[in-house]
Amino acid sequence: MARLVKKISKKAGLPPGTLVHIGEDQREKVKLRLIDYTEATLEEKELHTIFESFPYKDKESVTWLDIVGVHEVDVIGALGKYYNLHPLLLEDIMNTDQRPKLDDYEDYLCLFMKILSYDDTNHRLRVEQISLVLGPHFVFTFQEKDNALFEPVRDRLRKAKGRIRKLGPDYLAYSLIDCVVDSYFAILEKTGETIESLEEELVDNPQPKTSRQIHLLKKDLILLRKAVWPLREVVNTLVKEDSPLIQERTKVFLRDIYDHAVHVIETLETFREMASEMIDVYLSSVSNRMNEVMKVLTIIATIFIPLTYLVGIYGMNFKVMPELEWPYGYPLLWLVMLGVALTMLVLFRRKKWL
Amino acid sequence: MARLVKKISKKAGLPPGTLVHIGEDQREKVKLRLIDYTEATLEEKELHTIFESFPYKDKESVTWLDIVGVHEVDVIGALGKYYNLHPLLLEDIMNTDQRPKLDDYEDYLCLFMKILSYDDTNHRLRVEQISLVLGPHFVFTFQEKDNALFEPVRDRLRKAKGRIRKLGPDYLAYSLIDCVVDSYFAILEKTGETIESLEEELVDNPQPKTSRQIHLLKKDLILLRKAVWPLREVVNTLVKEDSPLIQERTKVFLRDIYDHAVHVIETLETFREMASEMIDVYLSSVSNRMNEVMKVLTIIATIFIPLTYLVGIYGMNFKVMPELEWPYGYPLLWLVMLGVALTMLVLFRRKKWL
Amino acid sequence: MARLVKKISKKAGLPPGTLVHIGEDQREKVKLRLIDYTEATLEEKELHTIFESFPYKDKESVTWLDIVGVHEVDVIGALGKYYNLHPLLLEDIMNTDQRPKLDDYEDYLCLFMKILSYDDTNHRLRVEQISLVLGPHFVFTFQEKDNALFEPVRDRLRKAKGRIRKLGPDYLAYSLIDCVVDSYFAILEKTGETIESLEEELVDNPQPKTSRQIHLLKKDLILLRKAVWPLREVVNTLVKEDSPLIQERTKVFLRDIYDHAVHVIETLETFREMASEMIDVYLSSVSNRMNEVMKVLTIIATIFIPLTYLVGIYGMNFKVMPELEWPYGYPLLWLVMLGVALTMLVLFRRKKWL
Amino acid sequence: MARLVKKISKKAGLPPGTLVHIGEDQREKVKLRLIDYTEATLEEKELHTIFESFPYKDKESVTWLDIVGVHEVDVIGALGKYYNLHPLLLEDIMNTDQRPKLDDYEDYLCLFMKILSYDDTNHRLRVEQISLVLGPHFVFTFQEKDNALFEPVRDRLRKAKGRIRKLGPDYLAYSLIDCVVDSYFAILEKTGETIESLEEELVDNPQPKTSRQIHLLKKDLILLRKAVWPLREVVNTLVKEDSPLIQERTKVFLRDIYDHAVHVIETLETFREMASEMIDVYLSSVSNRMNEVMKVLTIIATIFIPLTYLVGIYGMNFKVMPELEWPYGYPLLWLVMLGVALTMLVLFRRKKWL
Amino acid sequence: MARLVKKISKKAGLPPGTLVHIGEDQREKVKLRLIDYTEATLEEKELHTIFESFPYKDKESVTWLDIVGVHEVDVIGALGKYYNLHPLLLEDIMNTDQRPKLDDYEDYLCLFMKILSYDDTNHRLRVEQISLVLGPHFVFTFQEKDNALFEPVRDRLRKAKGRIRKLGPDYLAYSLIDCVVDSYFAILEKTGETIESLEEELVDNPQPKTSRQIHLLKKDLILLRKAVWPLREVVNTLVKEDSPLIQERTKVFLRDIYDHAVHVIETLETFREMASEMIDVYLSSVSNRMNEVMKVLTIIATIFIPLTYLVGIYGMNFKVMPELEWPYGYPLLWLVMLGVALTMLVLFRRKKWL
Repeated sequence: MARLVKKISKKAGLPPGTLVHIGEDQREKVKLRLIDYTEATLEEKELHTIFESFPYKDKESVTWLDIVGVHEVDVIGALGKYYNLHPLLLEDIMNTDQRPKLDDYEDYLCLFMKILSYDDTNHRLRVEQISLVLGPHFVFTFQEKDNALFEPVRDRLRKAKGRIRKLGPDYLAYSLIDCVVDSYFAILEKTGETIESLEEELVDNPQPKTSRQIHLLKKDLILLRKAVWPLREVVNTLVKEDSPLIQERTKVFLRDIYDHAVHVIETLETFREMASEMIDVYLSSVSNRMNEVMKVLTIIATIFIPLTYLVGIYGMNFKVMPELEWPYGYPLLWLVMLGVALTMLVLFRRKKWL
Repeated sequence: MARLVKKISKKAGLPPGTLVHIGEDQREKVKLRLIDYTEATLEEKELHTIFESFPYKDKESVTWLDIVGVHEVDVIGALGKYYNLHPLLLEDIMNTDQRPKLDDYEDYLCLFMKILSYDDTNHRLRVEQISLVLGPHFVFTFQEKDNALFEPVRDRLRKAKGRIRKLGPDYLAYSLIDCVVDSYFAILEKTGETIESLEEELVDNPQPKTSRQIHLLKKDLILLRKAVWPLREVVNTLVKEDSPLIQERTKVFLRDIYDHAVHVIETLETFREMASEMIDVYLSSVSNRMNEVMKVLTIIATIFIPLTYLVGIYGMNFKVMPELEWPYGYPLLWLVMLGVALTMLVLFRRKKWL
Repeated sequence: MARLVKKISKKAGLPPGTLVHIGEDQREKVKLRLIDYTEATLEEKELHTIFESFPYKDKESVTWLDIVGVHEVDVIGALGKYYNLHPLLLEDIMNTDQRPKLDDYEDYLCLFMKILSYDDTNHRLRVEQISLVLGPHFVFTFQEKDNALFEPVRDRLRKAKGRIRKLGPDYLAYSLIDCVVDSYFAILEKTGETIESLEEELVDNPQPKTSRQIHLLKKDLILLRKAVWPLREVVNTLVKEDSPLIQERTKVFLRDIYDHAVHVIETLETFREMASEMIDVYLSSVSNRMNEVMKVLTIIATIFIPLTYLVGIYGMNFKVMPELEWPYGYPLLWLVMLGVALTMLVLFRRKKWL
Repeated sequence: MARLVKKISKKAGLPPGTLVHIGEDQREKVKLRLIDYTEATLEEKELHTIFESFPYKDKESVTWLDIVGVHEVDVIGALGKYYNLHPLLLEDIMNTDQRPKLDDYEDYLCLFMKILSYDDTNHRLRVEQISLVLGPHFVFTFQEKDNALFEPVRDRLRKAKGRIRKLGPDYLAYSLIDCVVDSYFAILEKTGETIESLEEELVDNPQPKTSRQIHLLKKDLILLRKAVWPLREVVNTLVKEDSPLIQERTKVFLRDIYDHAVHVIETLETFREMASEMIDVYLSSVSNRMNEVMKVLTIIATIFIPLTYLVGIYGMNFKVMPELEWPYGYPLLWLVMLGVALTMLVLFRRKKWL
Repeated sequence: MARLVKKISKKAGLPPGTLVHIGEDQREKVKLRLIDYTEATLEEKELHTIFESFPYKDKESVTWLDIVGVHEVDVIGALGKYYNLHPLLLEDIMNTDQRPKLDDYEDYLCLFMKILSYDDTNHRLRVEQISLVLGPHFVFTFQEKDNALFEPVRDRLRKAKGRIRKLGPDYLAYSLIDCVVDSYFAILEKTGETIESLEEELVDNPQPKTSRQIHLLKKDLILLRKAVWPLREVVNTLVKEDSPLIQERTKVFLRDIYDHAVHVIETLETFREMASEMIDVYLSSVSNRMNEVMKVLTIIATIFIPLTYLVGIYGMNFKVMPELEWPYGYPLLWLVMLGVALTMLVLFRRKKWL
């Protein structure tokens, strides 16, 4: 599991705007992927240093710089300085424990989002941070680790599929946000399947293990909600934003993302309710089984304890015990014992315990 | 049960506006039912291809095209192209995992709703999607499967009953939405009956089966709420909408639908509270019965265990046990045992266990 | 109990405005009570047909027509036609499954409310609907069944007590709504008394019956809230309403009703919390008793089971058992058994079980 | 305990503005305490009849009339008539079952508040109503019973301490409201101490009695919240009020009261959460103890029941039982029994029951 | 633990603005640390009396007076008088039981915050109050006790690191608030670690002790939330504040603090949900274990009780018991007993108890 709270405290007391990487330790070199395009042309390359990206600053073409790894102060610092990004923004990009938010710095917008994935080795949820800076001619994306999330967008750019090459950087930003929101649906599908399989288990053969898995699911849903919930507000602000950076024709697409975000959140809430419901089902099945166990014990004990007492009586060694001398004493006792047992059974039947 | 989450992920990464059918697999051919009417005339026919509907585009009469089946990309695509519908709208129509919403595209409005039905074979809730596009002279409805939902409206159109032929396409749209909302009342009635019968079962003879059924009911209510809740906002927006597509005189009818939607939601909430209440009743009845079982066991055990101990003593084979020699030893022991048993019973009576 | 959901579905598919009675079956003839008054004059009569009320339409005096029974389509239809009432309004009046609401039709206002009463035969809550139409010179009230609810207002009119004959139809409407809200206080009082008596029962001698009664109470509170909650919004709208039908001087009275409605709702919420609290008290008392029962069983069993084992040993018939031959074997065993029992008692005392 | 719902129903059906006392029966004569002051002068006297207060009406000095007892219709009625108070206001003053509220009658403001006190005889919460009418030159306060609540203000007036004699009737009203809000802190302190002592009890020695006390506390908190919660809105309205009766310089003081009211409410909410938490702690301690009791029972029973069975075997009287003849049969059986007991103990140790 | 409610009642009845220290008893002398700086100069000294600070009032340089200890009426009173601070403000500073709030007195702003720390001796949360007054040329901070919280800011001032010496008192105030909010992250980290270690304990070996610790954690979270929650609103007001005391360029920094405050609150909420979840996990594990214990008891008892009864029968001393005479009676009984035991085991296996 990702740590619940990252070591944000190591920044405490430093002047605001100081660049400190907060997040999982990273050792790999930062990757820099640049795509520069107009409707007609496209240039794609992997940069070795951040400085290679600077000449693109003043070009009219749209430049998308995808920075994989936010742990190198030099890279983020140099980029920030050259593009005049606010120190607080740079600080936030390096601090991967942000909540999803939208910051409007007039010359550029900055969006923080979370991407989620299930770690298949230990079945735990991984949360990573994506930051996106949208400027007049450029889009910067910052990711913690390398992944294939934006590959479809790159592909569409290369093949000039859809509107993507014709519309500006705001449409590119939209496409990238859309990728992030779409990735949530994959998580929802996986969670939905987990819920369905747990529900079947709950009906067929509820086990302590089942309840542990439902609790794990509930915990994942808590973390999921924390990551996704603020995004709704972020996208809503983006739609209502009166920034020259976002053109009117892009807004209909952003509204679509907003609908998706609301859909994700509502589904999460439904899942949470279903998980709580499942816990209740489990607990009442435990209750029912306990009740059944108790009944079996009580029936057996209540029938045999008096009988054992009866046979105990005639096992005593008193000198004078007339019953023992009776020739039909033994079969008579059998009759009495049968009577006692039957009476008990009738009583249990009446109480509906049998 | 409808799958909790549909395979929306198969769309991930595709450019927005790409048409992909998301929902249950369908094999049947799409049905196209067209009704074209003015106050005086009415023409009704079943189309073989979508192209047969195109000539109606420029007519002044009201055209209602009911498309049953949203799984054929060709049909939806061709219609969208000819009528200039936005690609995102077409995408949403084909994706049956939308939440209820209203999209205003200026030239036309689009409404997404859910219809609900109980599958009588496995007593599970089925959720289907209805989309409705309202244009200046036309209404398109898109359904997943064939059903009799809109039959009453068609009937009224044919017989020119009520205002329906006199008023425009907005009134037709209202009539169709009204059908959808009315269908919720049927579900509410069925659910209300289930609640009442479960309540009787709970009073007469609560069983583990009863609790399982209440939990199933609660789950259905969670799904119902998810389907119905957003509709309130949708209809409210429609009432407040300042679109030329909706005339003032239709608004009083839409307000009526709004009242119905609120009524449905409030009833659902009441049902949810009653279902939770029923679970609590069940659990306290389980608790009570467990308590009763325990008491019976304890009474029997507490009376007979000491008695059995007593008779055990005089079953011992010690050489020297003076009591065994006493002539009245045996009847004396009976007196002692009676005394012990009575004392116990008095104590239980005092503790109100008997 | 009133059915949870009335057969509203029988209206499904009919054109809006079709008059269908929805509610309990009624056979009695509709009663029509008319009072027509000015500050100086008062005319009161029971009408045989609705037509007798028509001549009052154009009079300047205030006409109050109290219609008891909403199941006759002819009566409601004729009245609606003559007074130009909107078909949707008539439909709503006949459908007794409305939620409380206020409809403003410009020429007249319509208010739907619920009245509540305890059915003394089966101690269940009865919910009936009251509709009130306020026009420029008239007030119509529609009730499901005959009751004495409005008697005090009629009485005040007859005796010209208070302001009622001087002020217009809006003040009459206020007086009638006030009657309805006042009737809620009677229910609250009864419920408050039930809560107090249940609380005493809970302290003195909690029984499974007590918990069943609390659950019934909670269910009643759920239904009460559903009936009363929307009224607050209705009265608030009435206060803020900018209709010429309501004069400024009447508003201070309506504000007073608003305060009462809020008071009713807050008291209901408090009752709900207290009922939940009572259930919790009951459950922890069940828990405590179970614990006590278990302790008694455990103490008895833990003391006597080892003793019974001991006496069992010396009941064996082995040829060679030296202890049996000892002259002081028997009293020695008694000492051992006493020791075991005392040790157990000391242990229980230490665990605070005794 | 104060009755949950006062007999407000006895007013049902009476014309609005009819004066009926609703509340606890009172027999004492109404006390009338008058203080009339300017910055320079102060006159204080106890009145015998309400008429003695009338001459102060037209004076420029500030008149504070403190009326203790609201059960005499004559007193309230005469005052209301002379000072032109609205009949609804008088009705509300006499009805001690109001919720806290602020009524603005333009010429004067009226504030309803609750004061709370613990009845030391039965440890129950008492709720009384305070009404305050603020006019241009006067303040009227209405209390149910005599108490020392306003003594500090009277004292400050007499000694001309602080600003109180310099500022107008609005500052006097503020001082009185401040007294009421301050009295809530005393209740909070007492409740806080109860919580702390219950928490200690819960850790040291949880008893059924403890849980009953926590439940009583929770009930008190429900009633407290009902009394205090609406006051926040009342004071907030007072701060935002644009009435000429409240001067700008008084508002900073009212804002301070608002802060206090919010503080009281937040503390109450925190207390409620802590009380719920305490109930949970109690319940899990009951669960834990039950578990422990069960384990002891199970260990004892599981060890001795098989042993008792073994000794039972060799107590049988079969003619042919070879074991009984063996010379080492008896010590051998001891070895077997020891083996059985040890095996059981090892198994329990492994399950971590020991 | 800090007392739940401080002795605020000792102020009841005093005129508003009376200075009374409310909080933990303090005996140490108040410390006064003054820093006066411009971009070029810095003067730092520890004052002996408050009067030494007065000459700085009219200087253009920024003066930061850090007052450690709010229990001396003389110090606070003299400062307030000289700087014209409102008596209510002084009262609030001395009352350490304020909720976080922002008071705008036009000439200066006053901010109340809480700082939190874990007392390592008894693992309880300590809450202290920080007040901050921001004037045109000065910042006053009031703390209850000495701590190193503001040391980093002092350090930056001394070394002229960052923007701090260039920007005005509003930036200084921001830096100080930032310190307070940063200190919350340290608490969150500690709490996060506690949650993680408790979760491990819960999986490996849940103990009653574990549940007690989770309950303590939940209680701490309740107190934490109470201290932090209102701060969000305070900072938000500060951002929207239209005061000349806060310059536009400082607002971007305040917005950053706002984001942090929201982040802290959301994390707290997530922690609360996880703690509740953990309690549920604990309770279902207790339930499961109880069930297991019951099963063991039932299996043992149900197998051996009937067997013991059987051997009891043949321990009886009836004269006539033919079975005892049979030569193969004893081995036959063994067969019967084996049969009974096996039947029971098969039944248990079928019920899945084994």
